[in-house]
Amino acid sequence: MGMKIRDRLERERRVVNDWLGDCLPEPEELSRPVFDAMSYSLLAGGKRLRPILMVSTSRLFRDGVSPLLRNFACGMECIHTYSLIHDDLPSMDDDDLRRGRPTSHKVFGEAIAILAGDALLTLAFELMSRPALGDEKRQLKALNSIAVYAGSLGMVGGQIADIREAQDDDMAESIRFIHKRKTGALIRASVEAGAVLAGASDEECETLSEFGGKIGFAFQIVDDLLEHLGDSDVLGKNTDSDARNQRLTYPGVMGVERAKDESRDLICDAISLLEPYGKDGEMLKGIARYFVERVS
Amino acid sequence: MGMKIRDRLERERRVVNDWLGDCLPEPEELSRPVFDAMSYSLLAGGKRLRPILMVSTSRLFRDGVSPLLRNFACGMECIHTYSLIHDDLPSMDDDDLRRGRPTSHKVFGEAIAILAGDALLTLAFELMSRPALGDEKRQLKALNSIAVYAGSLGMVGGQIADIREAQDDDMAESIRFIHKRKTGALIRASVEAGAVLAGASDEECETLSEFGGKIGFAFQIVDDLLEHLGDSDVLGKNTDSDARNQRLTYPGVMGVERAKDESRDLICDAISLLEPYGKDGEMLKGIARYFVERVS
Repeated sequence: MGMKIRDRLERERRVVNDWLGDCLPEPEELSRPVFDAMSYSLLAGGKRLRPILMVSTSRLFRDGVSPLLRNFACGMECIHTYSLIHDDLPSMDDDDLRRGRPTSHKVFGEAIAILAGDALLTLAFELMSRPALGDEKRQLKALNSIAVYAGSLGMVGGQIADIREAQDDDMAESIRFIHKRKTGALIRASVEAGAVLAGASDEECETLSEFGGKIGFAFQIVDDLLEHLGDSDVLGKNTDSDARNQRLTYPGVMGVERAKDESRDLICDAISLLEPYGKDGEMLKGIARYFVERVS
Repeated sequence: MGMKIRDRLERERRVVNDWLGDCLPEPEELSRPVFDAMSYSLLAGGKRLRPILMVSTSRLFRDGVSPLLRNFACGMECIHTYSLIHDDLPSMDDDDLRRGRPTSHKVFGEAIAILAGDALLTLAFELMSRPALGDEKRQLKALNSIAVYAGSLGMVGGQIADIREAQDDDMAESIRFIHKRKTGALIRASVEAGAVLAGASDEECETLSEFGGKIGFAFQIVDDLLEHLGDSDVLGKNTDSDARNQRLTYPGVMGVERAKDESRDLICDAISLLEPYGKDGEMLKGIARYFVERVS
């Protein structure tokens, strides 16, 4: 299974990369730096897990990839990429390296990095609101839930809680709050939007959203574990930056063994939610297992 | 006319302020700083011209303000506010004062200011994509054009061109490029979206979009003139920051008299586009005149 899912992910990743190459607007000369910076970060590699999850979820209900689904998949990667650019800024994590390359503000300067992030976030919603031959109600519903998951009650809220200086909080509660939002929210949004766009029933959308929430939470726990166990070559970023910034991490708060156990439990629970889909759910199950296999 | 339009604008401004007070999400305790920072900037005052323009345009075609229109009006002000927060950052204009109060990063620090901007931009699209009893195709169309005007081909592109160091450009071309995008784009978007949402024909939407583009361009020329002639008490911000940052300004490039003439011509052209609406167009005409009266 291990190799097989990795091969499939690699194949899907290449397809998504092609889409992403096509989704950026044609540059204007007088504002060229923003286009260069958008392209630099968006096309920098990355696992493309969010678009792949969205497409794989959609395939539970219908074959093929509509232009609408492709726009949403690209939009999700634009949101993810903007969040990385802004997270890396000197006033946030102050990281010099991302995906093995200098971070955006190192290459383009802080002002252009901030604006490139803003432009990618805006582009995401531009892509997702393009006219499509489909059900506009569902298009708006998917766009709206992505906006909720990406905003102050989702990803941005998680980032705020992560950088907030608060000694008096319950650390276990805090780390759960952070991880469910900071990483979990966009992964959940990807799965949920895939289901909504593919015409799933409300009940199916809810179950799959729950699946996405669980694997998203597990993904961040595993990310912490990888940083904790440490291997900057594998991750392509500095593994000491969380410690340097005295951020909470799941193994830091809960201990390594408990972090491993919880991430495995989350994945088991998530996979059990796919029961109704039988063989059609194999790809999503494979991705879910891959999320924890990275560290087991 | 002068007083009358000011009174009407003041009345509309209060209505918009009430809407804005209601559009922010309920804060979560562990991420409270982002909600405080969003509210600090969004409810800081301001002329609310973009929401008022949107609503006034809609009234050319239908009475009243639907919940959908209200959400779009608030969304537009969220986008405007995010752009001000990010523009004021140390790596951009490095301004300490905005609307007579300390800027966001002065109060909350740079990281939270950046994230509050991100959250307001995201909230804008969340508001505009909420389910409404209306024409979803038009809702998506309005949302999409706002995203285009706010992004790399619009407002963000204008900001990039403004901060870019390029000595070899045609300065007259550059300043037009910048002003049409940096300020003009959102004002144009407000008018256009108001028309789209109110059910205007394609032709009407296009004419009104042109009206919005002209008054938006004029607005920024007048803003430059006010800064050039200088009065920090009236503007509630430091008037020397453009000069300090060696930004291009319209009177700086074109001269004061030509800047005044061009802004007046733009407003005349814009007003002539409202001819077909007769008396119904009085409010928009009044706003257009107010845009240049500020400096005449």
